[in-house]
Amino acid sequence: MRFDIITVLPGLLESPFAHSILQRAQKKGIAEIHVHNLRDYSSQKQKSVDDYPYGGGSGMVMTIEPFAKCITALKTERDYDEVIFMSPDGETFNQKIANQLSIQTNVIILCGHYKGIDQRIRDIFVTREISIGDYVLSGGELPAAVLVDAIVRLIPGVLSDETSALSDSFQDDMLDAPVYTRPADWNGHKVPDILLSGNTPEVEKWRFEQALERTRQRRPDLLK
Amino acid sequence: MRFDIITVLPGLLESPFAHSILQRAQKKGIAEIHVHNLRDYSSQKQKSVDDYPYGGGSGMVMTIEPFAKCITALKTERDYDEVIFMSPDGETFNQKIANQLSIQTNVIILCGHYKGIDQRIRDIFVTREISIGDYVLSGGELPAAVLVDAIVRLIPGVLSDETSALSDSFQDDMLDAPVYTRPADWNGHKVPDILLSGNTPEVEKWRFEQALERTRQRRPDLLK
Repeated sequence: MRFDIITVLPGLLESPFAHSILQRAQKKGIAEIHVHNLRDYSSQKQKSVDDYPYGGGSGMVMTIEPFAKCITALKTERDYDEVIFMSPDGETFNQKIANQLSIQTNVIILCGHYKGIDQRIRDIFVTREISIGDYVLSGGELPAAVLVDAIVRLIPGVLSDETSALSDSFQDDMLDAPVYTRPADWNGHKVPDILLSGNTPEVEKWRFEQALERTRQRRPDLLK
Repeated sequence: MRFDIITVLPGLLESPFAHSILQRAQKKGIAEIHVHNLRDYSSQKQKSVDDYPYGGGSGMVMTIEPFAKCITALKTERDYDEVIFMSPDGETFNQKIANQLSIQTNVIILCGHYKGIDQRIRDIFVTREISIGDYVLSGGELPAAVLVDAIVRLIPGVLSDETSALSDSFQDDMLDAPVYTRPADWNGHKVPDILLSGNTPEVEKWRFEQALERTRQRRPDLLK
């Protein structure tokens, strides 16, 4: 799967894509992540990519031209399944959308910054608008990294143990059961006896009950 | 405001904290962000910080000791308002929680990795568990960066134009109105006439109506 991320702050994305699972997926050739500097597509002398909003008000608005140029250049190279704009007013990202997107081939992700991007970019080029949650961030870069991370770990071959992703929270609309490791007793705080019993069916039963109980308490909405 | 982030992948967080608003806030002395390498607090020879889960199953579980040592060391230096654990089963982060946290002084953030962290760390040390959304990521590092970004931009003096944060999506339970900038006509795609009228009260009215309409269409749940 190939990601083309268009941003005014390519440097911000360097370290998230150079570690852990995203690094491994790229080394294995399972994921390609290309970060494009929006300023390279500006025809302004100052390489500016924003301008004052029509109608007045605070903040700057990102202009159409650099996005249009970059997207058009990418589209002449290959077909894209989606042009995604990361925006707090997009559809709320969840594990189901991550699953859907993980079977795509080529995806462009636009990162906004400043007050927003010219609405016409959204109208003309964007096929899907995604929000990672109901909060406001400085730009679309961290959301893009979150999106890519959630998607890439679902692609077969990325996680060393394939069952890991399938047993994660949300894949079965349930939260995870609590987990414990050594020592069995830490300053008087003990691991539940059942987990030390060696009785696998009973352990599985306990885990299911714990997961169900935690979901009931914390996220009853998931059980509907 | 001071953030102490405890992670097994400190390098992953380098570039997000070295750019844009987070960089500026640190330079101005408004925010301090300290990233601690969990392995520095391991007493194991291999600096390991995880072990097999009790009761079997896939994935590794992060052990108590390194977290306990790091948190204890930090707490001898200063008082902390919260010890936050980033976890998909925590309370769902939103702008209201960002506002609450932005008036804190010192906050510790724990990043999990692998299959999870020993439940006893959560029981003993953690005061608040926060999820950035209903999806699974490789670790708590990107969620920690998201949390810090959302909070820091709300601290007075961080944004150059203070009205910027107040007029953002969600601050008034409404999405933003569309924004436009030059050119007024891009390949036949025109800016709405009202924004070119110079009639400020009419522009404000249009923006309010657009914001309301967008919220009705996309997020009627916000209007309850």
